Amino acid sequence: MKNTLPPDNVGLVKPNKAHFDETLVLASGSNLNGFDLVYETYGKLNAEHSNAILICHALSGDHHVAGYHTLEDKKPGWWDNAIGPNKIIDTNKFFIVCPNNIGGCSGSTGPLTINPDTGKIYGPNFPLVTVEDWVKTQAMLADHLGIDVWAVIIGGSLGGMQCMEWSIAYPNRLKHTFVIAAAAKLSTQNIAFNEVARQVIRSDRDFNEGHYYKNDNKPIHGLMQARMLGHITYLSDDALDEKFGRQLRDGEIKFGYDVEFQIESYLRHQGRSFVDRFDANSYLLLTKVLDYFDPAAKSNGDLAKVMSPATAEFLIISFSSDWRFSPSRSKEIMSALLETNKQVSYIEIQSKQGHDSFLKAIPRYHEVMEAALNRIAGEVGIQ
Amino acid sequence: MKNTLPPDNVGLVKPNKAHFDETLVLASGSNLNGFDLVYETYGKLNAEHSNAILICHALSGDHHVAGYHTLEDKKPGWWDNAIGPNKIIDTNKFFIVCPNNIGGCSGSTGPLTINPDTGKIYGPNFPLVTVEDWVKTQAMLADHLGIDVWAVIIGGSLGGMQCMEWSIAYPNRLKHTFVIAAAAKLSTQNIAFNEVARQVIRSDRDFNEGHYYKNDNKPIHGLMQARMLGHITYLSDDALDEKFGRQLRDGEIKFGYDVEFQIESYLRHQGRSFVDRFDANSYLLLTKVLDYFDPAAKSNGDLAKVMSPATAEFLIISFSSDWRFSPSRSKEIMSALLETNKQVSYIEIQSKQGHDSFLKAIPRYHEVMEAALNRIAGEVGIQ
Repeated sequence: MKNTLPPDNVGLVKPNKAHFDETLVLASGSNLNGFDLVYETYGKLNAEHSNAILICHALSGDHHVAGYHTLEDKKPGWWDNAIGPNKIIDTNKFFIVCPNNIGGCSGSTGPLTINPDTGKIYGPNFPLVTVEDWVKTQAMLADHLGIDVWAVIIGGSLGGMQCMEWSIAYPNRLKHTFVIAAAAKLSTQNIAFNEVARQVIRSDRDFNEGHYYKNDNKPIHGLMQARMLGHITYLSDDALDEKFGRQLRDGEIKFGYDVEFQIESYLRHQGRSFVDRFDANSYLLLTKVLDYFDPAAKSNGDLAKVMSPATAEFLIISFSSDWRFSPSRSKEIMSALLETNKQVSYIEIQSKQGHDSFLKAIPRYHEVMEAALNRIAGEVGIQ
Repeated sequence: MKNTLPPDNVGLVKPNKAHFDETLVLASGSNLNGFDLVYETYGKLNAEHSNAILICHALSGDHHVAGYHTLEDKKPGWWDNAIGPNKIIDTNKFFIVCPNNIGGCSGSTGPLTINPDTGKIYGPNFPLVTVEDWVKTQAMLADHLGIDVWAVIIGGSLGGMQCMEWSIAYPNRLKHTFVIAAAAKLSTQNIAFNEVARQVIRSDRDFNEGHYYKNDNKPIHGLMQARMLGHITYLSDDALDEKFGRQLRDGEIKFGYDVEFQIESYLRHQGRSFVDRFDANSYLLLTKVLDYFDPAAKSNGDLAKVMSPATAEFLIISFSSDWRFSPSRSKEIMSALLETNKQVSYIEIQSKQGHDSFLKAIPRYHEVMEAALNRIAGEVGIQ
């Protein structure tokens, strides 16, 4: 147990919950008769309500971005290296908001929620949602918090897709956006990996068409393997080679199917710990959210046209070793924005850590965000 | 039903089987008390026995490399585009031999074989084997066929690893070798993908610790998904984008888990058809053969030292879009060989089809092999 928390930390934090009574009409045509959003906030909203930053989380992220829930927590929130007093995203200057998206499994309405119409949990009957749906609910949360315009909306990976959607759907409600390690749509290969992950979960002996809650046997193997597969795509080939190479756990080949190479042990561990914190129906749904995102599809693939309503200033960041959403995918977004003369900055950060780089405290990456945020702080009159 | 076969084809072919009574001591320390090798040959062995080419197959390949088994066959052997009368690997000039490796499921001794010691099939008790073991059995087959020295040994992917091992273990028994789309050892990422594939198969509800033959329920989902995953890594991102893009099977998003994107349909089809022809225990074993191959490990990673006994001339071919065994992996082999002044040619073929390129009739690729084989034909006095 910690006696003290690190000094540059937001410290002990508590999630909030906002309930919305309205019927939410989803992109799929399904309805949610009311929903909850769980969210955390750090820092203080200023009198002008001009210093608010929205953080959009990625596939396996949630609302717990910074600080600790208890002194016993082993880890802080998922982006604690960037958010806190005097950190890159400075809670002395900005009011930071991060909701858990609907369909997830961390407190906002999703498969684990009781369906008010049936009195039972939604489980596999929770409707599939889209980035558009998420952004709509985030806008409702902004209304709830009295935030008309976000100073910045920041998101990495699937979070970056939410940034793009905000700039299209609510162009006047954000001044800046940082679109990090993202893509305007999944590639065929991205969809292919997601499809394998889904098949693996759905054919688990305990999946039971998603009704695994009843017998309390979760599809642990399927979810574990889906995570193992995802994890490989988050890391670069070089990073894996450097970290694990062909190291053997027991120093010799055993000629069997137990762990032989350290990488096998690492992946199994990653998979197992994910199963403890994640729901399989949510994971399936989230892979679909990724697959479906393709704003340009509305306009025969013309991303420039679809993004033309955007008025935000864009900072687009990619990472050299990211092969899931490679720098070329970020450049597609940049090119589309430049076609209609949007304000865009683009930087490719040299990194070895693959897609996961967006979560790391890479000095150049943090410097770029810090410089942009200092400028934005000036714009909104923060010292 | 075909009435005629293509004119440049080896035509109807039959597999042969060679039985070896000897006890085979495997690298693992286990023994096989006798074994069979199924193999095919095309063309004629000349009087000097100097025109023999060995083809080493890859992960899911077998001995059926060219021609047809019946007039009803939908497809010829797996490398029919390269092998036949007047083709690149010309059966009018060369005597081509391709065995199915032990541990496979196409007729050579493997998990589906009756264990003479128990009277039951080996199943999961078939011992794990290595590239070294395979090459040893291939050398026994060469003896059986009266081939002291191969004019060329050719292999792509895992087949290329066998070429390397031949050049180390039996340096005087081959004059040339074509090491295609190969690597001197798997990368950490390669092992990681294999490990996910193994976990997926082994946790299938019907796997039953490998004893699935008893109840005739094969682990079809696991094997199908392992193949789907493998398949993604055989193709390039660009090839997938070009072939499938984000095409929807039914023209619209359905918001469900049935096939939505064409790539999903394609992968499921690939997976299903693999299950019909492949055994899960063999697949598991073959991923281990790949993982274990690392000849330089015997010498603290010094590949040049390990390959120094080689006397063959090497032609090393890589493909620009291959990310499973990228050109840089082929260059590692080339560099190691150049360190000890071996005769090496290296070419990187521009291609879009990823690792699978080695099976395709890419003009430049075939030209390079044809030129080399014409020279070799001259060396051994073939017109």
